[in-house]
Amino acid sequence: MVVYLVGAGPGDPELITLKAIRVLKRADVVVYDRLAGEEILGYAPEDAKLIYVGKKAGEHHKTQDEINRILVEEGKKHETVVRLKGGDPFVFGRGGEELLALREAGVEARVIPGVTSAVGVPTSAGLPVTHRGVATSFTVVTGHEDPTKPEKQVHWDYRADTLIILMGVGNVRENMQEIMKHRPPETPVCVIERGTTEDERVILGTLEDIAEKDLRPPGIIVVGEVVNVYREIRGSQG
Amino acid sequence: MVVYLVGAGPGDPELITLKAIRVLKRADVVVYDRLAGEEILGYAPEDAKLIYVGKKAGEHHKTQDEINRILVEEGKKHETVVRLKGGDPFVFGRGGEELLALREAGVEARVIPGVTSAVGVPTSAGLPVTHRGVATSFTVVTGHEDPTKPEKQVHWDYRADTLIILMGVGNVRENMQEIMKHRPPETPVCVIERGTTEDERVILGTLEDIAEKDLRPPGIIVVGEVVNVYREIRGSQG
Repeated sequence: MVVYLVGAGPGDPELITLKAIRVLKRADVVVYDRLAGEEILGYAPEDAKLIYVGKKAGEHHKTQDEINRILVEEGKKHETVVRLKGGDPFVFGRGGEELLALREAGVEARVIPGVTSAVGVPTSAGLPVTHRGVATSFTVVTGHEDPTKPEKQVHWDYRADTLIILMGVGNVRENMQEIMKHRPPETPVCVIERGTTEDERVILGTLEDIAEKDLRPPGIIVVGEVVNVYREIRGSQG
Repeated sequence: MVVYLVGAGPGDPELITLKAIRVLKRADVVVYDRLAGEEILGYAPEDAKLIYVGKKAGEHHKTQDEINRILVEEGKKHETVVRLKGGDPFVFGRGGEELLALREAGVEARVIPGVTSAVGVPTSAGLPVTHRGVATSFTVVTGHEDPTKPEKQVHWDYRADTLIILMGVGNVRENMQEIMKHRPPETPVCVIERGTTEDERVILGTLEDIAEKDLRPPGIIVVGEVVNVYREIRGSQG
């Protein structure tokens, strides 16, 4: 009777951990959303119950309260329940709320970290988020802010050398305008769409011009001098 | 003739990715340092050449230039060379320098991300680095700054909700003093030593008192209101 909150990694189905595979292989129930690839579900036993809780076109999708309730119910009935989440369960994955709901209901719950797309996507593309003499800190933030919490609005005045924005491509124009209040317009920017998958696209620009490029969400945005290190790495090939 | 820079994850040998295992299994050469666990090296073929480049007690350890030279030399001679690094290769791992050196020497190089301890250690312990209504951003920084780059000194005025400090337990008193110039002394702090391993220890406190506790490096330090969410999660068990 354990519910595992499991990070499925950034997209490439091989970027899941051995530990995640081990619990998936003995799952009675897998609760998943769109971010988890089909291949990864294939590790679950054939007779495992698969419960989709993500968004569906044209349909009402499950609220967080409904998902929490499903996890508690299934966790009370089955030996091994896996809640599979893209990236890492605690990086904008609302895993904390699920863990809290499970613990409050007396259901044993454990967390298996995953490769977060915030770091795994730039790393996989060859873009170092830290680099000696260039960047000794990075901030990860969502570009798609919770509208119900005005007091926690993104202020964009993060002072880390590298800024990594998840879920920000849809609002890229507004976000870059806000960041330009705190960083020069010529600051280099890199957008990595569908990172670590076969459809990965990398678009380079600056705070001032990146919104003019042909961008297609989903993607992550990296802002800072490390983008020039990436250019150097790409340019020095061969 | 490919050199793979591979993230080995935060400590638990099961927190390595399938992709990392796949390349390790066909490695001709593995270049590693202390952060990679013994078990992980066991995935390499029996006749693979293992080159240790980490620190040894009482001995001069290899400089980054020497490591870069070894990678270039081995990469020119062998089909598959794996450079195994703890966590993610680009989070304070100096992987960017290695990638640049390889590309400049005309050696093909690819990067396989790993679970960074910055996120994987708190996640695994049940401490959410982001939490709805509490933390919508986090900054990762090293507490052991590069002394040769005074212009890049840590300023500690990061404005993210959660602050995650790697390699900071040794300097904890000085670091907390600096952070208290920007955050209230009662801000909750959590130190996770040897995270994701059997020897994991979690120590709770505040910016003001954490340095008085019995702390033993290595460990990571998490600062911010998410530490209270962790307390709530722990307290609500059962």
